[in-house]
Formats: sequence, C-alpha cells, structure tokens
Amino acid sequence: MNYLQERILKDGTVIDEKILKIDSFLNHQIDPKVMHEIQSNFFDYFKSREITKVLTIEASGIAPAIMVASHFQVPMLFAKKSEPSTLAATGKYSTRVHSFTKDKDSDVIISKEYLNADDKVLIIDDFLANGEASLGLIDLVNQAGAEVVGVGICVEKSFQPGRQRLLEAGVDLYSICRIASLADNKVTFVDEDAE
Amino acid sequence: MNYLQERILKDGTVIDEKILKIDSFLNHQIDPKVMHEIQSNFFDYFKSREITKVLTIEASGIAPAIMVASHFQVPMLFAKKSEPSTLAATGKYSTRVHSFTKDKDSDVIISKEYLNADDKVLIIDDFLANGEASLGLIDLVNQAGAEVVGVGICVEKSFQPGRQRLLEAGVDLYSICRIASLADNKVTFVDEDAE
Repeated sequence: MNYLQERILKDGTVIDEKILKIDSFLNHQIDPKVMHEIQSNFFDYFKSREITKVLTIEASGIAPAIMVASHFQVPMLFAKKSEPSTLAATGKYSTRVHSFTKDKDSDVIISKEYLNADDKVLIIDDFLANGEASLGLIDLVNQAGAEVVGVGICVEKSFQPGRQRLLEAGVDLYSICRIASLADNKVTFVDEDAE
Repeated sequence: MNYLQERILKDGTVIDEKILKIDSFLNHQIDPKVMHEIQSNFFDYFKSREITKVLTIEASGIAPAIMVASHFQVPMLFAKKSEPSTLAATGKYSTRVHSFTKDKDSDVIISKEYLNADDKVLIIDDFLANGEASLGLIDLVNQAGAEVVGVGICVEKSFQPGRQRLLEAGVDLYSICRIASLADNKVTFVDEDAE
C-alpha cells in the first residue's frame, strides 16, 4: 500500500457510492508531504520518457502539477476556465469539458503561445472519474500538434468510465491510487497484483 | 535586482499602464525556477515567524503557495470560488471579493474544518493591485479567529491602492517585486533603497 492509499484510508470520508472526500490533504487543504510522495511516484513512472511540459486544469490539478514539473525541471501550464485579459493576438486553443458533478459544460482554454508542435506533454490531474478533464486536455495537446506522453492521476475512481476512455484513446495512463469501489461506506482499492 | 525582477524585464509585456503580462512564467505557464526563487525569498523573509498554514485563492495563487507551504512544511489551503460538493455540515467561511479586471463581485469560501482559532496564517498571492483578494483572505482568517502572520506577494503594482489598504489593516506585507509604474510601455520598479 502506498502513502496516498494510507492517507485515503486514514483521512478520507466516503460521502456516497461515487464521492470520496479527501479535501483535507489533496484538493482544498493540501499537505506538502502528500505532494512530495506524488511527485516521486510520477517521476519514477515517467522518468525514462522525454517530457518538455506538464499540463493540468485549474484549480485542484495545479498543486500536484507544479510539484511534478519542478521535479522534471520543465514548465507547467494550466488550462483556464476563463479567458485572461492578457491573451495574445495569436489566440487560444479551446475545448469543451462536461462536469458531471455540476451537470454543465464549460470551455477551457490555453494560450497558443505556450504549447507547440514539438512539445512532449505529461498531463497531471488530481482525480479521474469520467475522464472529461483529461480528454479535454488531450484535445488541447492534439490541437497544438504536440504529443501526449502520458496521463498521471492521483486518485482514479476505477468504477467510473474515465480509465477505459483514456485507454481507448491510446494513452499511457498511470494512477497512483485506483479505487475499485466506494460501496458500503468503505474504500476498496483495485488489487493490481490480482489483475 | 532579484531574479523575479530580471524575468519580468526579460519576458514580461506591458499591455497598458495598468496591465503587465507575465503569464509565460507566473500565472498561466509557470516556470519552476521562478517558483524556487519565490519560495526561498518568502522563506527568508518570514522564517523567524511561527506559521501553521499558508492560505491563497484559486487559481494563480496555488502554485507559489504550495511551494512556500512545502518549504515551511505546513499545509496549504486555497479559497474556492464555488462551493465543493463535499462541504462538511460544519459549513464554510465566506467573503465577497470584487474583481476590477472583470468588474464583478464573487463569493469565495473555505471550509471551516481547515482554519482554526490557533492557526497562524501566511497569505500568499501572485499579484497585488487593489488588494481585494488579500483583504478577502484576511477577512476569512479573522472569521476563524486565527492570526494573519503576514501577506507575501510575488508582484505588487505599487501605483494601485492595494499596498496602502493592507498597511492600513496592520498587515506585515512583503512583496518580492514592487512596480512603481508601467507608463511609457516600460516597467519601472520601486527604488527601495531611496525610500
């Protein structure tokens, strides 16, 4: 069992069969110890790959993404939910992402200035559920003609379709924690040795 | 001249007399080298103080805040612009922040679970202009009965009222870069030796 799994069992709260609350250490209050573990974990998995940029989406992807980018010594870029007043005349890449939690679509953008055809991009996010955010980020990378090296997820809800959708898109997906079920008010991890 | 000032002169773009674009390294694409310099700078200034928590506001405050929190080995908390689905029954602290750029008010919140009366809080943000975000964060800390140890700002536009408003609130304000003017399409820093 890794450190993040231990923290989920210790400090996480199962709200219902789909929602795990871990905002005491991952996505509202953030524990730097957890960030250092995540940073090392992603680095170990992706270190043999050439990576020129780490990409995430605001807001809760930013903390793990900057830690990972810092370890790889490459820039981190985050997709924004609103257009900045300083957007260059070169314009933006834009994609539509559906939030199942909020039941609404929103457009997320990155400035064309910061993603180029020669970039090799590692996508990082805190949660993977339906895969909407990750697929949106992959779309942005594709629009730039750049390469998606992989997708690194802190906590994957493996009982939701995100993992399958990313694998079908041909992505190298690595999740630090894979949750098989939140049924019966209990966190059950995927038994990866048994798979 | 410090590292952040050098990067502003090298890579910043003056959009008009009020807007400086530095989103190639600070608040859209983020350069980890800049983050490490910022981290050390804030640590040097605040290291003699007891700090139990770093507080910022989503989204562009998150990267510098987690780096600083990591150096102090304390949790980082970010105020959210929308209420999370996992908010506890204990509820939230809420404050209204006016955005002059977008000319609208928005409520920002933190969960009451993560800020207590015995917390000693360092507030970190990327920009200081009118001081709305920092004053909102100070209000949240006050609602919790906690103490604001100081406010650390990456880039202060000293020709706007934020600095004065924070000093009048009795805050220990430290800005890594203080910009005296963006007139004539040029960045002029405050000459702190002459003050």
